[in-house]
Amino acid sequence: MIKKISHIAIAVKNIEEVRNFYEEILGLRIEKIEEIPERKVKVAFIPIGETRIELVEPMSDDSPVKKFLEERGGGIHHISFEVKEIEKEIIRLKEKGIRLTSEKPERGAEGNLVCFIHPKSTYGVLIELNEKRE
Amino acid sequence: MIKKISHIAIAVKNIEEVRNFYEEILGLRIEKIEEIPERKVKVAFIPIGETRIELVEPMSDDSPVKKFLEERGGGIHHISFEVKEIEKEIIRLKEKGIRLTSEKPERGAEGNLVCFIHPKSTYGVLIELNEKRE
Repeated sequence: MIKKISHIAIAVKNIEEVRNFYEEILGLRIEKIEEIPERKVKVAFIPIGETRIELVEPMSDDSPVKKFLEERGGGIHHISFEVKEIEKEIIRLKEKGIRLTSEKPERGAEGNLVCFIHPKSTYGVLIELNEKRE
Repeated sequence: MIKKISHIAIAVKNIEEVRNFYEEILGLRIEKIEEIPERKVKVAFIPIGETRIELVEPMSDDSPVKKFLEERGGGIHHISFEVKEIEKEIIRLKEKGIRLTSEKPERGAEGNLVCFIHPKSTYGVLIELNEKRE
């Protein structure tokens, strides 16, 4: 089950454009930036306590984050919960009639396994489940 | 400066309607529910690690959360950062040209002092600063 909040993902048009706000204004620090070609995004990691903010920038026009940015502008994109044994969680959720965006876990940042619960099953919130790579 | 994420606020039409999803499906637990008449909302607290989710339900038609729900349906409403000395933070942010939604801190849940940074100054994210009542 859920151990903690893995991260809060915030969609941004351009990581470098928002860097000053997070670093100089809020006093946080971008620890590293990772490209995830499989998901067509670039991610900036901002540690904060036991969790982190992830700034997510689309790497191509067909990135799902690009669509979100066009519809809403930048903003909070999803919340991610750290779980153990994501494959078992997927089976459990499907048995309870919860709609997921994929049948199998996919690769997320840092090689973690991720899947998303569809907002139709969560009253509007895009929720990611995230199993940390050992 | 920022110590940790105080909470993630999620706007919901009705706390009782979504309770089953958070408790039975995600395995989390609503610890308590507080009414905040000054802000025209009812808040359900869901602890998770060192932070928490707050489910925010409007208590009247002129609640700002009601407007959010009408425009977008339920979803993540804001992210709240725990700070020390919120009044000093407000002065510091204003000096840097950051737009806040109020000049002075206001009362939030649990008697904490809160203020919001306007999404125009954050690239689209509603950010709350929150000073814990001692």
